[in-house]
Amino acid sequence: MDQNQLVALITEAVAKHLCHNFGVSKIPVAISNRHVHLSQEDMDRLFGANHRFKVLKNLAQPGQFAYEEQVTLVGPKGVIEKVRILGPARPKTQVEISISDGIKLGVKAPIRDSGELAKSASLTLVGPLGSTTLPEGTIIAARHIHMHPEDAARFGVKDKDRINVKAPGNRSLVFNEMLVRVSDKYKLEMHIDIDEANAAYLKNNDFVEIV
Amino acid sequence: MDQNQLVALITEAVAKHLCHNFGVSKIPVAISNRHVHLSQEDMDRLFGANHRFKVLKNLAQPGQFAYEEQVTLVGPKGVIEKVRILGPARPKTQVEISISDGIKLGVKAPIRDSGELAKSASLTLVGPLGSTTLPEGTIIAARHIHMHPEDAARFGVKDKDRINVKAPGNRSLVFNEMLVRVSDKYKLEMHIDIDEANAAYLKNNDFVEIV
Repeated sequence: MDQNQLVALITEAVAKHLCHNFGVSKIPVAISNRHVHLSQEDMDRLFGANHRFKVLKNLAQPGQFAYEEQVTLVGPKGVIEKVRILGPARPKTQVEISISDGIKLGVKAPIRDSGELAKSASLTLVGPLGSTTLPEGTIIAARHIHMHPEDAARFGVKDKDRINVKAPGNRSLVFNEMLVRVSDKYKLEMHIDIDEANAAYLKNNDFVEIV
Repeated sequence: MDQNQLVALITEAVAKHLCHNFGVSKIPVAISNRHVHLSQEDMDRLFGANHRFKVLKNLAQPGQFAYEEQVTLVGPKGVIEKVRILGPARPKTQVEISISDGIKLGVKAPIRDSGELAKSASLTLVGPLGSTTLPEGTIIAARHIHMHPEDAARFGVKDKDRINVKAPGNRSLVFNEMLVRVSDKYKLEMHIDIDEANAAYLKNNDFVEIV
């Protein structure tokens, strides 16, 4: 182990200790830009059944990653190119956009928790080898907080609780009733979209605090 | 006075009475898109000294209006066309953009109260007859609330106070420390930008509440 790794390890251990003993309740921020989760069927349709997808980078949530490949979103009023695909494949294709994106595309997407796609908005996805028009599956993702069970225990909350968190600084605000999701597959992180990040003047890895 | 005017008058009187006696503390929302306030000198430079500007519409704040004419914003990384000019002319030109606009233009504008332009961002404005490169004057407008002295009395606040207001609904949040500006030239209205409106899922004429 080199010096930098050692410093990182000690920092993490000390931070964990302080959090635990002094009740610090800070949560790092992750800002989601528009993206899609594709079903295997739609991956085949847009890129061809023989296409080998390339992983661009891993995301903070364990097992989640971004592909190098991108798709184009087409709505009745506009087009958004170069939209990131996140993996792995899901049972059903889900498109997550912002309110501004919805206006540009001309679709009225509802604010929904991930996976709640019934009667959400329709949209066409275009890839290099084909396209698919989804009758539903386009949502504005409801802000939420991922927590490992250790974090949940430390904060005294449980899966599906709703908590208020405060963003500090120049555009300080309190996000009310944020959904908490707890799993041993999760890493502590608050997920908000770009509109929400801008409104609170938050950047990736800034911290918010439970109030 | 015709029937409609009478109904409006009675409605206003009853509303005022209810607010006063039941402590209702709701404030209507006005969402600001990017816009510029031009000095007379810059109006002349961009449109020509003989140009007669046309008023498109009056704004809710008494004496404020939007012109039909528009300008183009040009930054080091991008261009935004068809930007609204608000009148009347001001002593110094002020450009109000969102964080997203700043990214598109490639300028780092500070969050500021209107009129506080020292060392704010540089930007080029282009009109049909000329252009001007402002060394400063581009800001992200800090959210604020306009109040008539009667509203301020009803809410028990004064000019330059800071108050917290809650947006209801699907993306409920509390804007902390909002600046209150009181003048007999003002009409009760909370001014936020599109990022803030989207983050709170607010539309024009929705209501927020003092907490």
